[in-house]
Formats: sequence, C-alpha cells, structure tokens
Amino acid sequence: MTTPELEEARAAYEKLQAEGMKLDLTRGKPSAEQLDLAAPMLNLPGTDDFRAADGTDTRNYGGLHGLPELRAIFAPFLQVPVEQLIASGNSSLELMHDTLVHALLSPLPGAQEGSTQRRWVDEERVVFLAPVPGYDRHFGVCERLGIELVPVPITDDGPDMDVVEELVAADPTVKGIWCVPKYSNPTGAVYSDETVRRLASMSTAAPDFRIIWDNAYTAHHLTDDEVEIADVLALATEAGHPDRPFVIGSTSKITLAGAGVAFLGASPENIDWWIRLTSKRTIGPDKINHLRHVRFLRDADGLREHMRRHREIIAPKFAAVDDVLTREFTDTPGVEWSKPAGGYFVTLTVPEGTATEIIRLAKEAGLALTPAGATHPGGDDPQDSIIRLAPTFPVLAEVRKAMEGVAVCVRLALAQRG
Amino acid sequence: MTTPELEEARAAYEKLQAEGMKLDLTRGKPSAEQLDLAAPMLNLPGTDDFRAADGTDTRNYGGLHGLPELRAIFAPFLQVPVEQLIASGNSSLELMHDTLVHALLSPLPGAQEGSTQRRWVDEERVVFLAPVPGYDRHFGVCERLGIELVPVPITDDGPDMDVVEELVAADPTVKGIWCVPKYSNPTGAVYSDETVRRLASMSTAAPDFRIIWDNAYTAHHLTDDEVEIADVLALATEAGHPDRPFVIGSTSKITLAGAGVAFLGASPENIDWWIRLTSKRTIGPDKINHLRHVRFLRDADGLREHMRRHREIIAPKFAAVDDVLTREFTDTPGVEWSKPAGGYFVTLTVPEGTATEIIRLAKEAGLALTPAGATHPGGDDPQDSIIRLAPTFPVLAEVRKAMEGVAVCVRLALAQRG
Repeated sequence: MTTPELEEARAAYEKLQAEGMKLDLTRGKPSAEQLDLAAPMLNLPGTDDFRAADGTDTRNYGGLHGLPELRAIFAPFLQVPVEQLIASGNSSLELMHDTLVHALLSPLPGAQEGSTQRRWVDEERVVFLAPVPGYDRHFGVCERLGIELVPVPITDDGPDMDVVEELVAADPTVKGIWCVPKYSNPTGAVYSDETVRRLASMSTAAPDFRIIWDNAYTAHHLTDDEVEIADVLALATEAGHPDRPFVIGSTSKITLAGAGVAFLGASPENIDWWIRLTSKRTIGPDKINHLRHVRFLRDADGLREHMRRHREIIAPKFAAVDDVLTREFTDTPGVEWSKPAGGYFVTLTVPEGTATEIIRLAKEAGLALTPAGATHPGGDDPQDSIIRLAPTFPVLAEVRKAMEGVAVCVRLALAQRG
Repeated sequence: MTTPELEEARAAYEKLQAEGMKLDLTRGKPSAEQLDLAAPMLNLPGTDDFRAADGTDTRNYGGLHGLPELRAIFAPFLQVPVEQLIASGNSSLELMHDTLVHALLSPLPGAQEGSTQRRWVDEERVVFLAPVPGYDRHFGVCERLGIELVPVPITDDGPDMDVVEELVAADPTVKGIWCVPKYSNPTGAVYSDETVRRLASMSTAAPDFRIIWDNAYTAHHLTDDEVEIADVLALATEAGHPDRPFVIGSTSKITLAGAGVAFLGASPENIDWWIRLTSKRTIGPDKINHLRHVRFLRDADGLREHMRRHREIIAPKFAAVDDVLTREFTDTPGVEWSKPAGGYFVTLTVPEGTATEIIRLAKEAGLALTPAGATHPGGDDPQDSIIRLAPTFPVLAEVRKAMEGVAVCVRLALAQRG
C-alpha cells in the first residue's frame, strides 16, 4: 500500500542515494583536527630530555608502575591515589582484557571459598553484567574469554540497581560488571551518587566480584558543567570492599588515539596482585611516552585546558546531530535521542523493529552506521531499536550531511512500516 | 685448614670489600652511551610528520598488524615474509606471554585431536622444553602460566637434539620449546643449520607443538662475522609444519630499551589466529612509535650501521671480561667461559657447587651478579656451576673493575673448597 508519506520518503531516499555520499558515523574516533591539538607531542620530549623527576633514565627498561609524575596528573581525574594508579601502554582495552585474563589464570585477592582459592578458569561458569545499551568492545572481551554476559538495563542514573543487586546477591557465578560511569557509551548517562554508592556497597555472592570502572570520558565534557561522579574506590573501601573496583582510564581521546597512555587504579592488594602477574609479562611500559605526555600536558590545569580545545571542536558536531534530530523528529512517536553532556556518542532510539532497516538503508546510501545490536551482548538488541551515532570523526559539514541522511532513512523506515 | 693460597685469597677479598664497590653485572641492559645513539628519536617523527607511506594517519586508532614500512625493515633480519610479520608494542616478552595465554584460552591452529579442538588450559599438563642454561624470563612466563618446564642441555650448536627429538616424539603434553637461536642467552651459542633443520622437521606427539623462536639478538654482532642462522619458518614450512614456529624479535637493544618495538612472525594461519584474538584486546599498537623507528633507522642498511655503533661501545666490554678471565683462569681446572660473537651475555662456568658461594661473596663485596640458578627452570642449577655475566650496562672501566672483583671471589671460593 502506498501512502503519500511513503512516496515522499522514497523520493527523498532516492535523491539521497543519487548523491553518492560516503560518510561514516560508526566509531568513536577523534578527528584529524583534534589530533592536531597534540602536534607538539610529535617532537617531544626532545633529544636531551629523558630524565624523570626522580632522575630515572626513562629510555631504559623498568618501572612497572609507570612514571610517577604522569600518574600524579591523572590521579585526581580518575579518583585514585597516585600510589595505587598504574600508567601502562597505549590501550585501556588491553588493560581490561589482561586483568580478566589474570583473573582467569590466577586467583584474585579475596577469591577464597572455604580453604580453596579459585581461578575463574576453574569455575563452571563466569558471568559479567552488561548494562545495555553498552560498549561493544567490553562485550567482545568477555565473549573471547568465555565469560557469559547478562544484560541489565541502563537508566539515566546508570544501571538499574534493583536488578543488579538481585543478580549479584543470588548468584556466585556473577563475578563482575562493566561500567562506563561518566558520559556512558553510548547513552551518555552519568551514574548518580546513589548508583555508585549501591555498586560499591552491595552484597555479592561471589567473594571475588569486580567492577570494571571504565572511566574513559572523565575529562571529556561537552558543556560548562564539568560533571563529577562519586568516588567508587573510596566508597567501596568505606563499605568494606576495597578490592571491588578496577578503575580504568586513558589518554586515547585526550592526546593521540593510537599513541596514548592507559591507566589502571585499584586497592593496594589488587595492585600488588596485578604487578606481580604483570612482572612476568613485561619489564615495563614505554616511559618515554609517559614523559612525552608530562611535557605536553604539564599538569591537571594543562589537561583541563587541552580538553576545552577538544570541546570547541566536537561540541558543534553534537549540536548538529541534535539540531537535525530536533527539527525532524520532535513530534515523532517512538523516536528519541540522548543529549550527552560529554563523551563520544549519541544514542538514537527508534520504534521497535526498525533499527536494522534504518542502518541497511543508510548503508545502501553510502552512510556507515554502527551495526544494529552492537550495543548489546551477542549483537542482539531484542527491541531492534537502538542506533549508536558517533559524530566526532567527520568534519562538521559532513556530520550535518550525514545526519540529514540518517533522517531520510528513519523517515523511510517509519513510512514503510506504515 | 688454612693454606697459603687460602690466606692470599682471603686477603685479596678483604681488600676488595674495603673498596666499597657498588657495581652490577646482573641484567642485559644497554648502557646510557648506547641509548644516546638513539637521541635523535626523542624528537621524531616531528610535529607535521604522521602519515605512513600508504597515507594512513598514524596518530589515530587501528592497524593491528603495525606499520608496513617498519615491518619491511625487520622482515629480512627476522627471516619472516613482511606480510606474516606483525609490529606491536614495546616488549617482546609480552608478545611471547600473550601468545601462550592465547594458546591456553583458545585452540591453536592444528590443535585438533580426532574431532576435538583443545585449549591448553583443558589439558591435564602442558610442558615446554627449556634449553639450559637459558633465559630466566622465559621460564618465568611458563611458571606464571602453570606450564611445566623440562630442561634440555644446550651445546655450542643449540639444544641437544637427540634429547629434544625423543621428548617431543614420546609425549603429547610437550607443547613447545624455548629457543634463542642466535647468540643465545646466556651461552652465546648459535644454533647450527642442522639443529634448526631438526627442530623444524622433527615429529612431535602434540599436534599443536610450537617453537618460540626468540631471535632477540639477530642484528647484535660483536665481531665482523655477522652470523646468519637457518630460516626456521621456511624449513618448518618445507617439512610440512608451517604453524610450528613463532618468530619473535624487538628493537629494545637496538633503539631504546623501554620504548622499542616488538615483532611477531609466523605462518599465515598462526597470524590470522593471533590477530583474531588480539583484535578483542586492543584497537592497535602505537604506530607513531613505529613511524619514529622508520624515520630513525630508515632501512636495513641504516639498522646495520646503527648496530655497528653499538658494537663499538660494547665489544670492548666483552673483551675486558675475556681479558680478566683469561689472565686469571686460563689454567684453572673447572673454570671456563663463553666467548660470544654477539648478544648480551657471557656464561662463566665454575667448579661444581661453587656458583652460589661466588655470587654470595660478590654480593658482600658490593658486586651484584645474577642469582645462582637463574639460568635454570625453578632457579635450580643442579651443578651449581653457572654464572651469567652481563657486561653491557656499566661503563668500560667499571666492567673491568667488576671482573677483577669476580676473579677475587672465584679464587676465594676455590681456595675455600681446597
């Protein structure tokens, strides 16, 4: 059955296809303009600058904890005491992956049941809770390591804590939860103080339950309100669960995406465990790159100032996404979108059963969107209604153009459905 | 019972102690003078130089295989076709560790028995052969991962292949062997062509047997004779075992010890397996550091020329070690030492049961030597006769002084024993 609406939507889509667009809103990558902000790093630290503040020759082997002065800059942003914060290689994903590998192959602090210390690999089943929509690479780590994912709905205040508390209290196979507590990927949710307190203090059946606290966007604000979240490590310690959180961060979206520094913070006992295992794996991280970051960022204020420059570049792109969606869909039932105050993503929610079709239409018009379901474990969004938009990488004009294209595809999918 | 010899040795040792020496011959670290050779790297690639040869923006995410032009420089040195060679982070140890972790948690290509693909973690027992004396950090990886080590004697031509062939043919739990094929750590042995051929072609009971071919010193010559070894990957492929070798290398002792690049080479199937698993762990290595290496080393000739500069600095240190030992112990029964043509170590063999005492005496005189037994699995040298000397890190005068000290300690230990 053809309605005038469908006719019109088809005509608009045909016009879009005829444009031969080739745009990509799939991944949360910084743009070239953002990377240019770090241009001075490319000839740092300088040919005769290789001594750390304590005199260490950063060129040589060693220093498993990473450069103290770099850790000092990031400690307040990650809410971890500097002596409990490790600076590592260029990837926070690998820190998370390796921490779970270590837990699979060596008992975690607290992994005592009766007199037996248990490695996760010896358990029948290991489960992580996955707030959804969430970050596909988190899910990928678990899938690769044979860790089952159980989805938990995320609200504007973070994961639905009633559901989380029930699951972790009842089942000792539930060993952990993924969290992106600030400007969550992809909804932009900021965990409320109450959510953080409940995560830090809840009773868990597993003695070695862990929170992977991926504070990826701690300094990545899009507004004047530089949001602070509650201190999960302090709250967990207060509640008698000091070993519960592993706090993760990185400079990938601060300095250079491929050549940044990743951080891991935790209780002294967790850090000792992690260093003991890591000492068998490497003699130390790239301390020259740590020093390069110190010379470039200088201090916490330098970091804040640098992040404001990022904001100047990317905030208009997020505004463009919101502009187009507001103009096109303010009164469209079932179409909603997040208005994040930071981070790298916008979540577009479309009527049930249309996300896959919209993404297919976009693809055939030369516009790459993150695959439907990517925000859910196993790639399965049961409502088929979540589309993750990543507007940072293309230039502003392209973001606007791509969003006009998205709007055409949404319109057509809705019209097709009648 | 006191002999004149013992009196004399004691007096010399007391004099040594009185000197209050503080020297260290423990680790194979480059000296500051060697690191200075790479000083130009500290402001490379330069603020407007970030494009790879193929136009890739090396600052951003991605590129799991590493920068092609860097892999092209190292492919001939590691005897791996460039398309089968990966450039990674700053540590070859972590490449080896992670490869074994992957094998523990995911079946290797070829790990088929009947219809079952088996992960190593599901085996009752996993064994690696450890040529001894060997590299303590190799052993540490296995100990940490629960892989048993079975020692195999090393000769001047590499591991005793009669022993190796028998062990691998008989026992399917023997899953691998550690090899440092050129200028072996610590004896300096260079594997003969026949040894390489036998390793590549021998029958193994395990279908997923692997050689960890740690070619750490491939370009690290101490003489004009730039030794070449047989091509293990080509020979294994010829013999019908293309997946057997994992070839490893790094620039840690070429450019900057803590800020180098590590390499992994193998069959196409192994590389696919490795990339598939690694893609869940990281979005890519530090390609800026890859580009930095390309700009600095330029090409294979640039690398060779750079290694000659290293040789100018370290060859005199190895000569000093040999001079002192020759002068002191040429006619002493039971005292022998290696005369390596490359690499980072000298192996000093002392009469059975005296290594621990010599190292203790040295320590009390302010001279740190690698702990006795470090060159053997579990730290257990059953003859207590192997001392690993690492002369690269101290300046030349200190190497000579330290070796004079070692000689005093050896003399005393021998005299004490009568």
